[in-house]
Amino acid sequence: MSKKPLILVTNDDGITAPGVRALIEVMNLIGDVVVVAPDSPQSGMGHAITINSTLHIEKVTIDKGNQEEYSCSGTPADCVKLGVKQILDRRPDLCVSGINHGSNSSINVIYSGTMSAAIEAGFEGIPAIGFSLCDYNWSANFEHCKSYVKTIAENVLKHGLDSGTVLNVNFPKLDKKDIKGVKICRQAKANWEEEFDKRQNPNGKDYYWLTGKFVNLDNGEDTDEWALANGYVSVVPTQFDLTAHHSIQELNTWDFNEK
Amino acid sequence: MSKKPLILVTNDDGITAPGVRALIEVMNLIGDVVVVAPDSPQSGMGHAITINSTLHIEKVTIDKGNQEEYSCSGTPADCVKLGVKQILDRRPDLCVSGINHGSNSSINVIYSGTMSAAIEAGFEGIPAIGFSLCDYNWSANFEHCKSYVKTIAENVLKHGLDSGTVLNVNFPKLDKKDIKGVKICRQAKANWEEEFDKRQNPNGKDYYWLTGKFVNLDNGEDTDEWALANGYVSVVPTQFDLTAHHSIQELNTWDFNEK
Repeated sequence: MSKKPLILVTNDDGITAPGVRALIEVMNLIGDVVVVAPDSPQSGMGHAITINSTLHIEKVTIDKGNQEEYSCSGTPADCVKLGVKQILDRRPDLCVSGINHGSNSSINVIYSGTMSAAIEAGFEGIPAIGFSLCDYNWSANFEHCKSYVKTIAENVLKHGLDSGTVLNVNFPKLDKKDIKGVKICRQAKANWEEEFDKRQNPNGKDYYWLTGKFVNLDNGEDTDEWALANGYVSVVPTQFDLTAHHSIQELNTWDFNEK
Repeated sequence: MSKKPLILVTNDDGITAPGVRALIEVMNLIGDVVVVAPDSPQSGMGHAITINSTLHIEKVTIDKGNQEEYSCSGTPADCVKLGVKQILDRRPDLCVSGINHGSNSSINVIYSGTMSAAIEAGFEGIPAIGFSLCDYNWSANFEHCKSYVKTIAENVLKHGLDSGTVLNVNFPKLDKKDIKGVKICRQAKANWEEEFDKRQNPNGKDYYWLTGKFVNLDNGEDTDEWALANGYVSVVPTQFDLTAHHSIQELNTWDFNEK
């Protein structure tokens, strides 16, 4: 048996997306790689799982790399569950998701299929990282991400991660020479100022497209948005205990008796 | 203009589900109610939003209540976005989601469409509550939930909620007389021990159903799982800043320089 770490790779843009191909290329340098990724794009799926429908897996060969690959009909979270519980014969040492075509910084972490896969692995106690590039273009350039992906993954393999914590890594859309390094950050407070583009179909019936503008409301210089805007790779430790512990004391003063 | 609070109601089981009908009935006692809910069940959708497809809204009348109702083709998060940005002419004073047919306690909060709607409202700074009953049955009895739904909603209207915090409320499947009261809790550490039920289709091709067993790993008596198992209504203040602040110091000791 190989002494190299076993690495489970997934994403949410689909198994043929250039971002996941770049991620596989890097992971092949540091471990034995098994890919279980959606057969079609799943962006904006949040932490969806498939409970009312069946799941299909297909073993596929997409390029000449050493990885083993499976295309799956499910969501990113489904892919991780299937990878860990059905496909792999031992527990992976690392799960990586991405590289996403588009930012998952600040509030976007909540909508992110990329991060839902990392979080799903985190539930299982597997060290996990979601990688995203702040460039939605399908033909985005991932070259400048590769050396950072490698050192960040190697650090996680070496140090491990706190229980209940996964990493959310975002890359600025810059040439490699313009990147200043890695910055450990907190999630910025930001908003999507949504607007709905209201249209009419040929039968005169209204329908809507969701559009919107991203607004960073957070002036802190310790946030992922600040780091990305200032030429850094942002790394946010991300947890899935959502308890707002600081609110518990106040809520315990409320009166819940029927009036 | 009415002086009553304006309340936006949604859910993830679909606009005709008995759980949301019960919630509407209670909200009609305390405010002016507008319902924007999915036209079909959306369970397990996590925080999905509709970005690559169009959204449709239909004004509907389902029962004789005073509420105004819209059926929407999107996810629970879409419904809140559409409600706030497109349908309502002023900001709601409260957003309530549910009553979900099934538990959203502990780790289930991450997969929950019900809670994604509350969190989406929270992004907008609207006080929000997700309600769920630990009974997956479509014909579940919601009677014992009603007085608690009312007092909890009234408390939120009176006191407000900390910024960045929404409430995750779960009801045990018990007769009203057996409920001991409301307990403020933290999210339990729990797991789904997934198994995949592997089958073959009539053409001999494998497919899978996701199945699993819920396992509470947390011995604390301050958790939502403990409260529910001991006859209490659980209330967990839930936040969407996912930063694991306690990990930042350790991560800052890592070496990210290329080797």
